[in-house]
Order: sequence, then C-alpha cells, then structure tokens
Amino acid sequence: MRSALIKVGLCGFGTVGKGVFELMTASESLIADRAGSKLEVVHVGCRRPVHGISDKKIRVSTNIFDVAIDPTLDIVIEVIGGTTTAKELITAALNEKKHVVTANKALLAVHGNTLFALAEKQGVNLKYEAAVAGGIPIIKTLREALAANSIRAIVGIINGTSNFILSKMASSERVFAETLAEAQVLGYAESDPSFDIDGSDAAQKLAIMASLAFGMPIEMNGFFQEGIESIESEDFQHAADLGYRIKHLGIARLIDDRIETRVHPTLIPASLVIAQVDGVLNAVMVETSGVGELLLVGPGAGSSPTASAICADVLDIARGIVARSKLIEAALGVPTAKLVSRDRVAVADMQSAWYLRVLVSDVPLAVASAADVLKNMGITIGVLKQKAPEPGAVVASLIITTGVVSTKRLTTAVAEMEALDSVVADVVLLRIEAFE
Amino acid sequence: MRSALIKVGLCGFGTVGKGVFELMTASESLIADRAGSKLEVVHVGCRRPVHGISDKKIRVSTNIFDVAIDPTLDIVIEVIGGTTTAKELITAALNEKKHVVTANKALLAVHGNTLFALAEKQGVNLKYEAAVAGGIPIIKTLREALAANSIRAIVGIINGTSNFILSKMASSERVFAETLAEAQVLGYAESDPSFDIDGSDAAQKLAIMASLAFGMPIEMNGFFQEGIESIESEDFQHAADLGYRIKHLGIARLIDDRIETRVHPTLIPASLVIAQVDGVLNAVMVETSGVGELLLVGPGAGSSPTASAICADVLDIARGIVARSKLIEAALGVPTAKLVSRDRVAVADMQSAWYLRVLVSDVPLAVASAADVLKNMGITIGVLKQKAPEPGAVVASLIITTGVVSTKRLTTAVAEMEALDSVVADVVLLRIEAFE
Repeated sequence: MRSALIKVGLCGFGTVGKGVFELMTASESLIADRAGSKLEVVHVGCRRPVHGISDKKIRVSTNIFDVAIDPTLDIVIEVIGGTTTAKELITAALNEKKHVVTANKALLAVHGNTLFALAEKQGVNLKYEAAVAGGIPIIKTLREALAANSIRAIVGIINGTSNFILSKMASSERVFAETLAEAQVLGYAESDPSFDIDGSDAAQKLAIMASLAFGMPIEMNGFFQEGIESIESEDFQHAADLGYRIKHLGIARLIDDRIETRVHPTLIPASLVIAQVDGVLNAVMVETSGVGELLLVGPGAGSSPTASAICADVLDIARGIVARSKLIEAALGVPTAKLVSRDRVAVADMQSAWYLRVLVSDVPLAVASAADVLKNMGITIGVLKQKAPEPGAVVASLIITTGVVSTKRLTTAVAEMEALDSVVADVVLLRIEAFE
Repeated sequence: MRSALIKVGLCGFGTVGKGVFELMTASESLIADRAGSKLEVVHVGCRRPVHGISDKKIRVSTNIFDVAIDPTLDIVIEVIGGTTTAKELITAALNEKKHVVTANKALLAVHGNTLFALAEKQGVNLKYEAAVAGGIPIIKTLREALAANSIRAIVGIINGTSNFILSKMASSERVFAETLAEAQVLGYAESDPSFDIDGSDAAQKLAIMASLAFGMPIEMNGFFQEGIESIESEDFQHAADLGYRIKHLGIARLIDDRIETRVHPTLIPASLVIAQVDGVLNAVMVETSGVGELLLVGPGAGSSPTASAICADVLDIARGIVARSKLIEAALGVPTAKLVSRDRVAVADMQSAWYLRVLVSDVPLAVASAADVLKNMGITIGVLKQKAPEPGAVVASLIITTGVVSTKRLTTAVAEMEALDSVVADVVLLRIEAFE
C-alpha cells in the first residue's frame, strides 16, 4: 500500500519556490509520516541559475518545460507566476497526466475553468490552496469543511498591501502616498503597486472563492471594483468617531438567485472581530446556512505561508496516490460540468448603507439642502453632523450616514448634492456594511 | 466509479442527531454532487420515540446497537454522547468494518487512542471534526492544512459557556453567579454547568488538539486546570485599565522537547484579535513554523454547526468510498503506532506573567513590603498601582503585574505577601499571556 517514493517537480525557484523546497526538505520525515510515503523534489526548473540546492541527485533544468514533461514525476508545482507561460506549463504537465499544484491566482482567475476541466479529463488533480489568502486554508475550508453548507456570503480582507496601508493610515493619520512608500520599503508593496491597491488582486481572489462557494465557473465579470488610492486620512477619524473602521473588503453574496461581487473600501463596525485584523494579515469570513459565521485570520502572503499551503496540497495529492484513489478531486467542489453560471447583481443595484463627507460653505443652508436631497430620494439619514471648521476656514465638513439604499439612488442624490451652491467639492463616498 | 448509494446510520436523535438528519436531507443534492454519490440516512437508532422522520423507508430502532451492526450501512454516526455506551457502540460499528463519525469529545479524551487504533486495524475511518470547537474546522486544519508545519502552540477559547459568562461579566460588571444564571436561561449553560465552567470540557478539547498538533497519544495528564468560578467582577475593570481582557484559554505549547498543557482564565492584550471574540463563540489560534499565526473563529456548539461538521466528515468518508481509496486516514495525522508520548512541563515550572490584586490596610507600608517580596524573589514588576479606596473604606487594592516567572516562584512570593500584616486577604492571582 505504501509507494516507495513520490516524485515532485518544482517549476520556479524564486522566493516561494525556494520556500517550498526548504519546507519539503526540513519537514521530510513529518511529511513522509503524514503522507504515508516519502516525498522528494527531484527536478527543479528555473530559467536563472539556481542557488541553494546542494543535493547532486536533484536535476536542475533551465527549460522549465523539461520539468512539466519529465516522465519520472508524479506531481508538478508551478510557482513561476504570470499567466502565459504558466498556462502552457500547467497544460503540458496535465497533458502528461501529472498532478499539479499552483499558487497562481491570476492564472486561475483567467484560465482556471479551462485548466480545471483539463485536469478532470486527464484524471489528475489541480490544487491551488496557496492562490487565495496564502496561509489561510480557505480553499480547503470552502471545498471540504463547509461542503454540506449553503454559503450565503464571503467577506474578506484579501489584499495584505491594502490592509497594511489602511491600518497605517488609521493609526498614524498619514496620507496614502506616504504609507504606500513605507509599505514599499518594507517589501509589503511592489514597486508598481497598482494591482494590489486598485483592487484587482482582491477581485481575482474573490472570483475564485465565489466560484467555489456558489458552484459557478470562475468569472471576472459583474464586479464592482474600487481600490484604496483615493482614501483620505481624515475619513479614518470620522469613521472612528462613528464607531467604524475602514477596511478594503472583497464581498461575494447570494441575493435571491443572483450573485453580487464587490471589492471596495468599506466602513465596518469597530466591534466586529474582522475589524481588528490589521497590518498585512488577511481574513475571510464565511456566512453559511449551517455553521453561521466562520472567520479565518492569518498571513495572506509571504514565502513560508505560501510554501506551507503548497505543501498541504502536495500532501493531499500524495495521500491520494498512496491510496490508489480512483477519485479525482473536484477542484471547485463539484465537477466542472456541474458548475452553473449565475446572474450578477448590476453595480447600480448593489445596496449598502453609505458614509458621505460633504465640504460646504454655508453650514445651516447646506445641512437643510443636503437633508432635503436625501429625503426627496427616500434615503434615510443615520447621522448628520458638522465637523467644526478649522479656525479661520471658510468651509466645513458635513458627515452623513444613510440607511441601506442602491448605488444608483445614492449616486443620483450625491450628484444633486454636488450641484448645490453650498457644496464646494465632490462628495467623498464610502460604503458601510454592518454584516448583521 | 460512482457508487449507487452510500448508506448512513444515525445513532442518537436528540438535538444534534435531528440537526444532522435535517441537514443531510436539506442538502441532499449538494452533498451528492460533492461526494460523487448519493448519501442517505437509512437507519436511525434512538431509545426514545423518534419524531420528525416521515420517510417510511427509513428504519428506526430503539436498540441503537441494531444500527451499529446493520450490515447494509457504510457509515455510522454516533451522537448519543456519554462514554460508556458510546464506546461500546463505536467499537461494535468498527468491528463490523463501518466508518464512524462522532461528535463525542469526552469519549475521545478517554478512549480515543483505543478507538483510533481499532479503526486502523479494521481499515476504516473514525472521524471527529465536531468533537472540538463545533463548527470551526480545526481538526481538518491541523491534520491536513497545516500538515507540513511544525506546530509550536495552540491557544483556544474553546468553551462557549465560559466565554459567554466572561464576556457578560466584562461588559456588565455583574457577578459570576448572576451571569451563569443568565447563561442557563439562554440555554448556553447546563443545569449542572460544572463541566463547562471548571475547565474540564476545555481540557478535553485541548488534549485532542494537542495530540494532533504534537503527534502524541491523547493524554489528560499533566494539565494545569482552573475554571472561571472564582473570577470577580472588579478584575475585569482593572484588567481593562491595564489594556487587557480576561479570557478562559486552553494553551498547549511545545517548550524545548516538552509539552505544556494549561486551561485557565488569562489576561491577554485587548489589541489581539482573539481578545475580541465574545459571547458563545469559540476561537483557536495555531502558532506554526511555516504559516506563523492562524486564527479560526466560529460557533463552538449548537446543533447546526455540529451537524455541519459531522456532515463534512461523512462527505470526506463518502469521497473515499467513491474513490475506492485504499488509504485509511490517520485520525491523529500519523498512524497511531507513530504517535510518541512527550514529557509534560510540571505545573510548578509553567511560566507566565502575572496579575495580582492585593487587598491591603496600610498602603505605603504594603507597597514597600510587596515590592520587597517580589524583588527578593527576583520577580520583576511591570505595574504596581493603588486603586483609590472607596470613601470611608479602611482597605485599598494594589494592582500588580509581574514579568514572566514560574508558577512555583510566583506562588512562593504570594504566600510571603499574604503573611504580611498589611495584606488583609488572599491575593487574587491571574496569569497574563501576550502571545508575542
């Protein structure tokens, strides 16, 4: 019943690849005990010269496709990143009937459906725990632990860069650009950070989780996406005064038969546990029919957490090999043929409560006019208060919160407000979610 | 490759049993899609008359052992509770080579090693996700998601009753007895609540998690166990003033080659995410070599979360049956023969920082004397402050926090302190953990 040795190929030997190699070497006997078989990385593919592999028995190829088609391998790990070569590489490995483990969320967001279908056809597994929220086992939790549950919503802090910047802005009152620069110095943000801070990264992760949670193909359409680039420092203080914290959230929600997918900065009650998740940490909250709310918090990136998630996938596959399992895991919970695309809630129809900051000249007039505008649109007001103007200032801020209303109705009201003479700048607009 | 039907027997039809039955019925098609086979509860065992089963094809037995030995069944679910009959029942089912799913932590704490060994010998699975922390998938996370990690510590809020009472005492300043009565009215505490509030329940759950995390047999020896019965309301306020919250924690930690297992009320920094977990919620924090800290938060009890966890186990087993898997899952991560007992840290040697509340008559004298006692024992003082006495009171409280020191040294110092003339009552003593 025990295979002599399960052979693993590793494509990519950057930070993550090295982390995987080191973890598999360091945990060799633990992994063997848990898998029921010895596992060894026997072939590493990397275009650049590889440092840190002293074992002469390990084959090293500069052509990573040599790894994908190496007939001695059982499992291929892809950690080269990118979508073009990675897709070709994984396709080649799957065509050779090798199990594949990837950490590549961008690839899955774009080509996941094709690749998962190919894996099924070839009778091998394509696993991707590390692709979403790094060291947090959210894929396994959604796919297996909550398998008997109907999932109602997924809410996640799923971009560590954004969470670091927002946490710093909240605690230091520093502006966005300054905090971003600090994140870059600390290695928490790329030199071109746009993919992280504009919400694209979070949207891709959310698309993968939504697919798994709601039994849909992975689809990037119908998202509302807003990044953190325009967040101003003073709103953290106003939010705190109202009992909120500002977090960049990915939200996927089942509303009747439709799915709503949103990625944006959000005011959430400071009393929520997820509101306390600061720095580069990630957190995913799953709202289910059976379990109620489940929250997972942990490191969303970094070579060690990513390597740990990759190794857990490798171990799961290894156990299947040892068991001579005839079952190919449905990567998205159910076979790809059973995935059903769902209608999306249009952005205009997405509902939430709102936070508005309105810069005004004539306070009494502006208060009356703004209240009128909201009232005429049937929008209830939660809070409407004036922030005392700076001494000598000719303008003041109104902070307004509303009841739950559609984006369309709210933005119409805001346009009317901005047309008022007493309103002197564009209204600052943020969504509020209470998750009650 | 697809079995026609996987047949499930359910022993026990109380709240949890009913919950399992309802979830399996309600999620029938979801479960079939995810398992790759239809699953049906075909036989229910319950000593009392069963209500709520309208399907005449379902066999109902008042002798639950009829379920355990029913030759048509693939999987038996045990939710009768208790340790004696439950052990016989599971033994009978395993002897008949049936896979078993249980939610029974007390049983596993006492007889787990025997039952897991029997399951291995019989070539079937014995799964128990619901036995620890209800709807939180901590068993799967420790066993599979963190399989390649060395675990350094597990820290958990793992008794919902205690967490509810402490949360209420913290927010309402009410005394223990009053809050316990409220918990009983709300159904969060049993009429005899001792097992929950004295830490026994938490200790059993911790023993199971420690076994899984550290590759040991399940052992209840070497625990330091303290419940919440003696917690006084005023200490919540003092703790808050110092930046702490009081939580009842289970802590299992690897210290060099030894394991420390402790269950007690603990002051933890209010800034920690786990410190925000209130009410009947549970939370488990896992400190690992690879992932760093992972925190899982969710409902620790209740029929729906428990049923969800049981169904996830049933689904995992079903997938194995469909796959004709030759592998029997190692319930504790590695085969029972590979589990290694570890030395325990003696209670006297367990280290922590401490919170002391000392009732004194002569404040200046007491401050000097108490400081002397600590200094002579080589114990560093973090904070030493006097709480202003009530008007007219002849006694005042000193609040002291210490650096990290062993239980033995601290209790020696406290005994000396209590012998001082200026100290008029037993010192109130709580551990502080910062988890840095």
